[in-house]
Amino acid sequence: MARRLLSQLGHLEIITPRLEESTRFMIDVLGLEESARDGESVYLRGWGEWLHNSIVLTQGDGPAIGHIGWRTEGPEELDLAVERLEASGRGEGWVGPTVGHGRAYRFRSPAGHLEEVYWEAERWQAPPELRSTFPNRPQARSTRGVAARQLDHVTVLAADVLELANWKCETLGHRFMEWTEAEDVELPVFALVSTNEQVHDMGIVIDAEGGQGRAHHVAFWLDGPADVHRAAEVLLEAGVSIEYGPGRHGMGENTFLYFREPGGARIEVFSGGYRNYVADWEPIKWKPSEGSSDMYRNNPMPDSMMEAFPAGTGETGSVGNPWALEGVN
Amino acid sequence: MARRLLSQLGHLEIITPRLEESTRFMIDVLGLEESARDGESVYLRGWGEWLHNSIVLTQGDGPAIGHIGWRTEGPEELDLAVERLEASGRGEGWVGPTVGHGRAYRFRSPAGHLEEVYWEAERWQAPPELRSTFPNRPQARSTRGVAARQLDHVTVLAADVLELANWKCETLGHRFMEWTEAEDVELPVFALVSTNEQVHDMGIVIDAEGGQGRAHHVAFWLDGPADVHRAAEVLLEAGVSIEYGPGRHGMGENTFLYFREPGGARIEVFSGGYRNYVADWEPIKWKPSEGSSDMYRNNPMPDSMMEAFPAGTGETGSVGNPWALEGVN
Amino acid sequence: MARRLLSQLGHLEIITPRLEESTRFMIDVLGLEESARDGESVYLRGWGEWLHNSIVLTQGDGPAIGHIGWRTEGPEELDLAVERLEASGRGEGWVGPTVGHGRAYRFRSPAGHLEEVYWEAERWQAPPELRSTFPNRPQARSTRGVAARQLDHVTVLAADVLELANWKCETLGHRFMEWTEAEDVELPVFALVSTNEQVHDMGIVIDAEGGQGRAHHVAFWLDGPADVHRAAEVLLEAGVSIEYGPGRHGMGENTFLYFREPGGARIEVFSGGYRNYVADWEPIKWKPSEGSSDMYRNNPMPDSMMEAFPAGTGETGSVGNPWALEGVN
Amino acid sequence: MARRLLSQLGHLEIITPRLEESTRFMIDVLGLEESARDGESVYLRGWGEWLHNSIVLTQGDGPAIGHIGWRTEGPEELDLAVERLEASGRGEGWVGPTVGHGRAYRFRSPAGHLEEVYWEAERWQAPPELRSTFPNRPQARSTRGVAARQLDHVTVLAADVLELANWKCETLGHRFMEWTEAEDVELPVFALVSTNEQVHDMGIVIDAEGGQGRAHHVAFWLDGPADVHRAAEVLLEAGVSIEYGPGRHGMGENTFLYFREPGGARIEVFSGGYRNYVADWEPIKWKPSEGSSDMYRNNPMPDSMMEAFPAGTGETGSVGNPWALEGVN
Repeated sequence: MARRLLSQLGHLEIITPRLEESTRFMIDVLGLEESARDGESVYLRGWGEWLHNSIVLTQGDGPAIGHIGWRTEGPEELDLAVERLEASGRGEGWVGPTVGHGRAYRFRSPAGHLEEVYWEAERWQAPPELRSTFPNRPQARSTRGVAARQLDHVTVLAADVLELANWKCETLGHRFMEWTEAEDVELPVFALVSTNEQVHDMGIVIDAEGGQGRAHHVAFWLDGPADVHRAAEVLLEAGVSIEYGPGRHGMGENTFLYFREPGGARIEVFSGGYRNYVADWEPIKWKPSEGSSDMYRNNPMPDSMMEAFPAGTGETGSVGNPWALEGVN
Repeated sequence: MARRLLSQLGHLEIITPRLEESTRFMIDVLGLEESARDGESVYLRGWGEWLHNSIVLTQGDGPAIGHIGWRTEGPEELDLAVERLEASGRGEGWVGPTVGHGRAYRFRSPAGHLEEVYWEAERWQAPPELRSTFPNRPQARSTRGVAARQLDHVTVLAADVLELANWKCETLGHRFMEWTEAEDVELPVFALVSTNEQVHDMGIVIDAEGGQGRAHHVAFWLDGPADVHRAAEVLLEAGVSIEYGPGRHGMGENTFLYFREPGGARIEVFSGGYRNYVADWEPIKWKPSEGSSDMYRNNPMPDSMMEAFPAGTGETGSVGNPWALEGVN
Repeated sequence: MARRLLSQLGHLEIITPRLEESTRFMIDVLGLEESARDGESVYLRGWGEWLHNSIVLTQGDGPAIGHIGWRTEGPEELDLAVERLEASGRGEGWVGPTVGHGRAYRFRSPAGHLEEVYWEAERWQAPPELRSTFPNRPQARSTRGVAARQLDHVTVLAADVLELANWKCETLGHRFMEWTEAEDVELPVFALVSTNEQVHDMGIVIDAEGGQGRAHHVAFWLDGPADVHRAAEVLLEAGVSIEYGPGRHGMGENTFLYFREPGGARIEVFSGGYRNYVADWEPIKWKPSEGSSDMYRNNPMPDSMMEAFPAGTGETGSVGNPWALEGVN
Repeated sequence: MARRLLSQLGHLEIITPRLEESTRFMIDVLGLEESARDGESVYLRGWGEWLHNSIVLTQGDGPAIGHIGWRTEGPEELDLAVERLEASGRGEGWVGPTVGHGRAYRFRSPAGHLEEVYWEAERWQAPPELRSTFPNRPQARSTRGVAARQLDHVTVLAADVLELANWKCETLGHRFMEWTEAEDVELPVFALVSTNEQVHDMGIVIDAEGGQGRAHHVAFWLDGPADVHRAAEVLLEAGVSIEYGPGRHGMGENTFLYFREPGGARIEVFSGGYRNYVADWEPIKWKPSEGSSDMYRNNPMPDSMMEAFPAGTGETGSVGNPWALEGVN
């Protein structure tokens, strides 16, 4: 049980081949707020986020995850994280500071994702017209589109899901919460690690094609399951197809809903779920037929959900449909 | 910003003058499960709790909080906590092991509450008839009464609420999240500290009579605000009066509902609320008129909510109605 | 048990001394849609309404209810209604046709309200940019402000609440569902009559000052209680004070929330509630202490809720605080 | 537009080959209350129903619908209904009185179902231990199992769905609300008729095999969509498989969940949905791809949902999978 070093998933860079369309979608439909813009990048945040930004949209060959940023528990924990990352041989050195946060130490995860840890982060200041009537809110509650409240988690691909899960735990102090094994084969296909009370802030899906640095989806938090159901209507009325959901995962008990932004990245809106504080938690193993993905056990994931989005290649690959190995998901 | 040492509010001992009635209420109406019983104490847990017990009901002069138990992040954090507690001059030494957890180090808080920190905790094993169909659940979802899922927080009294809040943060690494000042006087009357993502797992109400070790309420978590509203009906249909709520606090954005168990202790069921991961959070100050207690600003707290329950004296005192100083709450 | 003649509360005319401000509020904050405008009147509807309009805002000495329009079950039922109204000596003759509906027969209720019955009504046609992706919706779901779905009910004042309730039932076929008697006096203070499955589409509050034609509030429907709670936040963030609620009435089991529009009329947003189809229902009598107004029995109605708004006088009167006769509501 | 004659779907007789198991399931899992028992039949009602019973479980060759009982708006409407039924040549004469209601006039619908109309109905009297604290409730809110509140609708099969829908409207005054046509063929496969504010109290699925008197499911009402989601967990934890859902129909906007009782009949729990009072409503036509069955357009109905249950034959037939004609549902 390694010491917990991270306080939260701080931000994600999403590479999109259509920066303007992705930005409009994130603002108008998903309901994010723009905090800054510079050249090739737009900085966004959910209305309920206190820090400067949580999403960086960057023009490029995508859809892809550019990098994943983790904020540490404090400056001491940043030093410790860098020490461990350097020891792991995966460190790539310091960058920044940049828009919204101080300098960050970058590393390449065993599954090929570019990630970073940092401590200094800028508090966001709402302009007068966005101020909330409540002193504890970073801005007034938004009613625009889905009105996503805050970034929740990212789900990536890894050729070996347990390897990545364990590396995260040992190096950065995530808890390994739950995982799924293919129905009739002893093959781990999905794993969830967490720095917080929920089942995950990082999901790990098997990359059966052995890709590097590919991603599955980026998820935003809504206040409750009823908001996820409302979001489904808002999306459909806005002409956006829903890829999967609203439904509920057995793992973590969360209510989910997946769709795509114009650049091709898969987005989830998400709520509910258990609150688990057991510090020496041992990961729970599921078979798909127990309801790991679909708690109600009657709503198969569509094939399209097996598509990954690659890191910087512009191609859309497949996760190799591991859930369908035995026809169950 | 002190290092976070605690993983969760582990358990509370509630002293009741009517052990059997309190126990029946906790099981039949609140929906807790009995995990063990010995002599003067009954050990209970919510259906969603993975550890052995979270409530210890003990016969005695009550209602009162017997002691408050905090589980650390790990064994190293237990050592650190003990070191700091000893340095503070508030340590009272080791006790235990006892039912459900290993040995604990006890201390007396600046407000006179008996508390303890410990690491070793027993995982609860559901008997076959209670097992869940889902591998990540400690037992099947209960439908009995209010069906409280898990212990959430405890709210105590302190003559100086900021002193206690700051002491918790410096000694044990809580975050100081929000506080309320009396309407027209610079008097802090309520403060919230947290070891987790929500606004608090300990609330601190001013003890205007300068009492020691007194308490205000014990709260349990339900999955969502709709469950709190359903609980209100279940309580009324069971003949239990609701003291305050269902309503919503501006502080933390939580949905609340207060009532009394037969021994006299005030119980809350509770849900919703923001998820805040800002590690260097600076506490937010409220005035009651901004909606600190009643987010909707139109539902005054009844006078009865100003009653405290003392530690072991058998008397019910008053918190001195600080909210009513200026006629607003 | 008189034959049911009415299919729905079709529309309400609200007189406002501030037409432009009331209109902006109804559109921007309450989320209604404008269907037409002519001279002194603006015609509005909720996004989920299939007919042309349900609210007519008219400049004048207000706040007041201008008139109340009931649509019949069909043309035969219109003839029958007119026959009965003429026989009652309360008929005032035909008017119209007008914007959105055909000619209407007007009458003056025993409590002095101007009402009308009509059959012909215009179906509303959404402009292309508002069309829904679902063929059964009159337009796409709105996300503007509170996004009220449809008109629900009107609550008026009457010196004799039972007289008006019974007259409605005998003349127009309402069902008399529930009523409240003052706590320690045999004085009926509130009654609910309905043409539909819910407890009311007309509420009747005692006018202890013996006024004529005065009103209490106009209510709009939201999909569920969670939407009423969301509406409370939307209102507060928009700078609108909440007069009472969100709470739940014992009568009808509905979730409520009251506030004022800029012209002074009290508006409610409202959801939930039982569905009652018992054709020979006998009215249920409540005492306030049983939870008629506040199902949870701990949240007194503020004094301001005792204010009525008169018909065309420009003054705000009082309903005479009948609930407070004995200090309970 | 025929005069509305019916006030509600009063009761359904379900034939089960396993009376005791079906009864235990209805009481323990679905949460119904037993009101009476005689010989081969058990009489049940939801906790929120004011009349004596809404379900009659009868031992026999099933699963099947024994008969469908409609309560009229009043005694005059009963006379009118009998007159029209006799004129239609489908009348079968008077039966009863029986447990819970007075004499009833039976008829055979064009699709071969045995139905009846009646007026006299017995009000249910709760025994003291079940009485509610609220005067408008027939009994205290139940917390047993799914705690179904009341019977909502029945869905039957018909070789010609439009014929049956139109016959219901012309003869008994239902409104024809919405229907679905097969994706690429002009074949009506599903129709909904209603005596109330919701989209249906009778659904009509095509019987592509040309059967007579077959049924699809029986539905019960829960207070809100959150209760349907909770019901899904309660069912799974009780070992009951969920056939389809929780999901949401585009038609009527209702939240649904289907499963089977031990006798084989398909049961639905159901909530939400629009409230439609347009007396001259013209039926809305859907294509399955517009979301008629699955509002979110991504969750295909499982093949098992194409199974019907026959009237008294003991066999389970098929509805002929009309939705799958073109591979979409």
